[in-house]
Amino acid sequence: MKTIDFTIVSGGVTAAAGFVAQGCKAGIKASGNLDLGIIYSEKECTAAGAFTTNRIRAACVTANEKLLPSEKIHAVLCNAGNANACTGARGDQDVVTSRESVGSALSVPADSVLVASTGIIGEFLPVEKIQNAVPALVSSLSREGSDVFAKSIMTTDTVQKEYAIEVALSGGKVKIGGCCKGAGMIHPNMATMLGFVTTDASIDSHDLNRLHKRAVDMTFNNLTIDGDTSTNDMVLILANGASGVTVSGESDLDIFKAALFEMYNVLCAKIAEDGEGATKRVEVNVYNGKDFADCKKAAKAIANSNLVKCAMFGNDPNWGRILCACGYSGAEFAPDAIEVTLCGVPVYMNGGPAKFSAPELSAKLDNPVVKVDIDLGHKTEIHAVAHTCDFSYDYVKINAEYHT
Amino acid sequence: MKTIDFTIVSGGVTAAAGFVAQGCKAGIKASGNLDLGIIYSEKECTAAGAFTTNRIRAACVTANEKLLPSEKIHAVLCNAGNANACTGARGDQDVVTSRESVGSALSVPADSVLVASTGIIGEFLPVEKIQNAVPALVSSLSREGSDVFAKSIMTTDTVQKEYAIEVALSGGKVKIGGCCKGAGMIHPNMATMLGFVTTDASIDSHDLNRLHKRAVDMTFNNLTIDGDTSTNDMVLILANGASGVTVSGESDLDIFKAALFEMYNVLCAKIAEDGEGATKRVEVNVYNGKDFADCKKAAKAIANSNLVKCAMFGNDPNWGRILCACGYSGAEFAPDAIEVTLCGVPVYMNGGPAKFSAPELSAKLDNPVVKVDIDLGHKTEIHAVAHTCDFSYDYVKINAEYHT
Repeated sequence: MKTIDFTIVSGGVTAAAGFVAQGCKAGIKASGNLDLGIIYSEKECTAAGAFTTNRIRAACVTANEKLLPSEKIHAVLCNAGNANACTGARGDQDVVTSRESVGSALSVPADSVLVASTGIIGEFLPVEKIQNAVPALVSSLSREGSDVFAKSIMTTDTVQKEYAIEVALSGGKVKIGGCCKGAGMIHPNMATMLGFVTTDASIDSHDLNRLHKRAVDMTFNNLTIDGDTSTNDMVLILANGASGVTVSGESDLDIFKAALFEMYNVLCAKIAEDGEGATKRVEVNVYNGKDFADCKKAAKAIANSNLVKCAMFGNDPNWGRILCACGYSGAEFAPDAIEVTLCGVPVYMNGGPAKFSAPELSAKLDNPVVKVDIDLGHKTEIHAVAHTCDFSYDYVKINAEYHT
Repeated sequence: MKTIDFTIVSGGVTAAAGFVAQGCKAGIKASGNLDLGIIYSEKECTAAGAFTTNRIRAACVTANEKLLPSEKIHAVLCNAGNANACTGARGDQDVVTSRESVGSALSVPADSVLVASTGIIGEFLPVEKIQNAVPALVSSLSREGSDVFAKSIMTTDTVQKEYAIEVALSGGKVKIGGCCKGAGMIHPNMATMLGFVTTDASIDSHDLNRLHKRAVDMTFNNLTIDGDTSTNDMVLILANGASGVTVSGESDLDIFKAALFEMYNVLCAKIAEDGEGATKRVEVNVYNGKDFADCKKAAKAIANSNLVKCAMFGNDPNWGRILCACGYSGAEFAPDAIEVTLCGVPVYMNGGPAKFSAPELSAKLDNPVVKVDIDLGHKTEIHAVAHTCDFSYDYVKINAEYHT
């Protein structure tokens, strides 16, 4: 991956020129909290999406998949509190109705509107509440609205999650901004992950689609809170070209690719940090695998291991669990060539335990961010990262509560 | 699977004729509890094994794999408290030394002795403690020793786990007895699963190996407490022919196959029931998949889902999580053809939620055994079962404790 210079800028989905956003309380959540948001660009956007691999797919997922990639997108509508999943033909119709409502209020075609939902599954979307709320929501869209938008998509998230950067391409500077919501919903249950990214770069839809899918594969697809894949997961990117700068040529594509990785990787870290019940974020970096797929397998297996995650909660420098997860990951390595490092301290090397002070390492583990580094020993310089959090009593508490 | 008549008989690994066993306190566990056991048959046994798929393999696993299948096995030595994993060449030598010690005491070849270990990884086996304990252990081997043997292999297990049955073959009755230990070790951590089964049937080693591997694949390989696969998992079976009855012809093979399934399935249920922190056992039966692999995928994904397991702990009739796990399992099904039944109550059918009383179903979930039934809708009459337990605060507590 190319190393790039970039500047962190303030804001989220409206950091890039030409995007406005807003959120409101439409009455979908029983709590009465913010639950509906819109992102809008007057200029038509090139757009791409990455979606859940679950065979059970929410109506919004199948609807967006039919439209993307596209060069004619204007808006994204997102609701929290109801997933509109397992709702059959009526669910599909509710997506159409929602789109028409937004299209009409914005005076854009209904099929230029993407939709996302997160919340309880198996209940019909209260579409009339959305229809009632959309006109006022549209009239209040603003350059300052990204903050409220980011709040309106939250479920069990305890903090809003936004990030924005500026990078220089050959023709000038462009901004990329985004927000996301993380894993877990207090009321029902899917660990739905949603990400929305906007950029004022101009980019060919084929390139955008390719770079987006690759960056998602390197980041969001390696993010795990509890190993469950929701019916509603999606990450959308919209590029409106409002900066007047085009992603042009191999060098620009490389920079843009690296910028998307930076953007998505930080959003993933924010989700991991705010995982259900998390007391700390855990980042697993795997180096020198046979290939990227192997690095990814090992990183995900470690990040997914309940035993590793419980050890992290307990500040337990338990390298055996890490090595064990690596062993069943399917990644190829020689047991005497692998090295395991925890918080910068080598714990396993040359086929046996390394010498370290367990109490000192335990103290290092008592930290908001813990890094696990694995060297698979193939000297390929290939790397993959997986993000997760520790596993605490509160995870069980949040997910054992009776939902009906 | 053929339905067979069988009788449950008392005992465990010594229920079948010609087997003796015993356990003792060799000082391997810091607690001073029982930690070393032997199973012995004076008659040479046909034997087969099934082993962890983890790339990191304990010394006992690689040693047994080299010997099996075999027709010359006399004994199994098992220790708890130390896994002898990640211990390199010295670990291999310690296996050789242990075998020689048992072989010498029993006057049988060292390579007729199988070995199994469970406990902390990365520490050398205190082999001299084993050498010191073996002579007295061997001299106390008895037909009544299965109970103490079953206790000597326990780690975080709260109860010993034994089962024995008698079935009629064409030439007469044979007995099959076994014991196992379940998931999780309080002191270090691998969720090591060990199973030892003995029978007085006479059976060809090729047939035994094939039927054993198939039965393990249908039972132990679908057992999940926390999704982690240990470095030391193994299930061994020894057949000494002491009943004088041979498994002969297709009909006998079918009966023996079904008997092994019954045996292993019950042992798995016992492990699930005693899973770390478990308050209830959860049995997932998947019917009518495209093929066995698909039924198994769906059953395992549901049994492995932390969200499903937390819902079971909370008596939450949360069918969305079950359907979601089925969706990402990789099993093929049409979302409107799948049916989900919880404690005998249909909760999802015809592509939508079924009508049921949530409080009544929640009351049914408050039970020591909960059954989840899935019909994938392919009308193949193929079935797979997966065993697990719920996920409680205590699981996190047990696995977060600092181990050094």
